[in-house]
Amino acid sequence: MAPDAAPSFVWAAAIPAVGDLLELGRDEAHYLSRVCRVRPGDHVLATDGRGAVAEIEVRSSGRAVTGEVRTLRRDARASQAILACGAPEGERADWMVEKLAELGIAVCQPVDCERASWRSASDRIERWRRLARAALRQSRQSWEMEVREPLDLGAFLAGCPAGSACWFADPEGGSWRGAPGDAVLLVGPAQGLSESEKGRVRTAGFSAISLGPSRLRTETAAIAAAALWRAG
Amino acid sequence: MAPDAAPSFVWAAAIPAVGDLLELGRDEAHYLSRVCRVRPGDHVLATDGRGAVAEIEVRSSGRAVTGEVRTLRRDARASQAILACGAPEGERADWMVEKLAELGIAVCQPVDCERASWRSASDRIERWRRLARAALRQSRQSWEMEVREPLDLGAFLAGCPAGSACWFADPEGGSWRGAPGDAVLLVGPAQGLSESEKGRVRTAGFSAISLGPSRLRTETAAIAAAALWRAG
Repeated sequence: MAPDAAPSFVWAAAIPAVGDLLELGRDEAHYLSRVCRVRPGDHVLATDGRGAVAEIEVRSSGRAVTGEVRTLRRDARASQAILACGAPEGERADWMVEKLAELGIAVCQPVDCERASWRSASDRIERWRRLARAALRQSRQSWEMEVREPLDLGAFLAGCPAGSACWFADPEGGSWRGAPGDAVLLVGPAQGLSESEKGRVRTAGFSAISLGPSRLRTETAAIAAAALWRAG
Repeated sequence: MAPDAAPSFVWAAAIPAVGDLLELGRDEAHYLSRVCRVRPGDHVLATDGRGAVAEIEVRSSGRAVTGEVRTLRRDARASQAILACGAPEGERADWMVEKLAELGIAVCQPVDCERASWRSASDRIERWRRLARAALRQSRQSWEMEVREPLDLGAFLAGCPAGSACWFADPEGGSWRGAPGDAVLLVGPAQGLSESEKGRVRTAGFSAISLGPSRLRTETAAIAAAALWRAG
């Protein structure tokens, strides 16, 4: 859905100053050389996922790709959403992470609930971080989604940022009437939040919103909430 | 996210009258006996995906499952959305179909565009119909999503129902301000709609809506549009 002539867009751990040389990482070099088929003289865009976006003139391509920074801009971060989510079933978290990153969510926060815990496995978190980075490239964004280690519900509620509108998905809630701005969106696990958890969430200042008439899987509810937040 | 005590929910090709016996299909019998572990005397719900929902008292379980229809209701269909979509990349259509069905879309219409055609393969359509039916069960809906054979853009535009609000996803469009009601939502293929196609779509009465600032994959845009429509 991008304009046809959009230059390739990649991630780099750090963006040097204008005039300096950038050497891209192995994955990005492979992508540029093999998928995008860039050649010396071509221009590509690179972001550090923290707001910096550089226009790079490619100097060498192949197994390693280097280029000179020609221009550099820094994008301020627009409003931010934290999407906190109970564990979905099976491997459904993988594409949930990809889609939340595409939709511009700032933080994906797995939350352990009474009825479901995230299997703690650092290799899964690493995979999700790679998926988030791939989605950054795909969606040409300058801010990367952060994937955090799982927290239990109490720790998550205690750490919610002040000043954010806080919502949780609940079939009994009202319609989405969110305003644009910073937000925290909480979706329960496949088995739902318990009544006592819902009470704690409400006490912490979260409002219940319904995402519509039919029952949604956890990962679908998370994507739907992200899409609504994004639309303002 | 369902209440814990919700009875199992299955699909049946046809729902007989109250007092009559229903024999469930093989897949549904397997699901009830092996996954839900229903036993004679248990109550389950069955829908034909066309608005009928019966409460069934199980008479026999195991390889075959039969039950007596105890109550029967017919749900009127609420507002309907047709989600028309250009071809996404790779196998991404599979989960798109599942999610559109969960979100209560009435019709999934693959559309062949200048820059991308759906690989015509009846086994893929059949797989999507099975996925839509599985999502019906999962989301406990009484109306099944119809998955149609691909159409080219011209044929699709010519056949759009009168009286529906028509929208197409476009980065240059306005914000979503949809009202609840019947709608047709069109999302271009991974390579986008051409300018001439956008002209034809506008001439056919479609309004451009932006789904937000970052670029979305086709399947993500389709899910986001469905989530917005559903939220009204």
